Amino acid sequence: MKEKITQASILLFEQKGFSQTSIQDIVDSIGVTKGTFYYYFTSKEQLLMEIHLDYISDLLNRQQSIMENEKLTYQEKLEKVIVLLIADIQDKGPSGRVFFREMRHLVEENVETIDKQRDLFRLNIEQLVANGIQAGEFRPELRADIVAFGVLGMANYSYNWFNPSGEISAEQLSKLFSMILFDGIKKP
Amino acid sequence: MKEKITQASILLFEQKGFSQTSIQDIVDSIGVTKGTFYYYFTSKEQLLMEIHLDYISDLLNRQQSIMENEKLTYQEKLEKVIVLLIADIQDKGPSGRVFFREMRHLVEENVETIDKQRDLFRLNIEQLVANGIQAGEFRPELRADIVAFGVLGMANYSYNWFNPSGEISAEQLSKLFSMILFDGIKKP
Repeated sequence: MKEKITQASILLFEQKGFSQTSIQDIVDSIGVTKGTFYYYFTSKEQLLMEIHLDYISDLLNRQQSIMENEKLTYQEKLEKVIVLLIADIQDKGPSGRVFFREMRHLVEENVETIDKQRDLFRLNIEQLVANGIQAGEFRPELRADIVAFGVLGMANYSYNWFNPSGEISAEQLSKLFSMILFDGIKKP
Repeated sequence: MKEKITQASILLFEQKGFSQTSIQDIVDSIGVTKGTFYYYFTSKEQLLMEIHLDYISDLLNRQQSIMENEKLTYQEKLEKVIVLLIADIQDKGPSGRVFFREMRHLVEENVETIDKQRDLFRLNIEQLVANGIQAGEFRPELRADIVAFGVLGMANYSYNWFNPSGEISAEQLSKLFSMILFDGIKKP
């Protein structure tokens, strides 16, 4: 039931926005009472926090296993992190949109918790790039921090436009982005 | 006065979000009455629409003059479009954040109007890239549409993290992004 409430809320938050969605809307959409909601959550804010935490923890776990895979070059690791971000649009688009849009509705202490996790995800990418520079895979004149922001920008922005059931699959989009990132667009 | 109301609203929408900001909050923040507000605007939604329209029209005008400049290569034009987007964070950060975050609070017919203008901005970038491919400046195997989304992603996402009064200026950030975009990060 907890999962059912969470899923219904994600869809409503995505469609109507967090502020515009009441607990009544949530319980109505799955035909239960407010009592059921309050059995699992103390407030709409707590529910939003759990959605954020689930989303980012899952991403961090998967990123971690890519980073620890010693068979991969740094370029391959970075490619896989891009696939991870883009594939999530396919697999859990609505949670992603709620994650990106509704951050400011978290209460302050929760924002800090989530911010730390988001920072960790970004700093892991920065570390990958820095390691790749050291290993001679990437250009030495790069700033690893800016590359990390660039990668996150390209990938995360796709939540706004990418339709995974359209002409291009998540995998193809990841490849196209990787090609731009690794080789640049200028004709050699 | 209209401009004063608009500027005060942008700051409040940025801080509290559009839904959470009342017309009362807006007029209180500049010490006028609701009557003054309604002399210039019919509703909070109309005000939001004007903020969106001003923002995108200004970007489109400046993009247009870059595109029409025959002295520039396609690479130089694309660089200047990136500078345009990043410099706006410095010059009008709050409007930008309101523009990106509060889109869904526009009424439906207004969303369509703004969407068309946003699409136009993106399609102009796509056209630049396509022309650059044809002219032999950019790699022929690229998809111009995906490059345009990538450029917009990198640049627009900086609204979330870039602090123009920090260590890196808007100009430097644009250069670093251009370097990644044109040359790629892989060591040749």
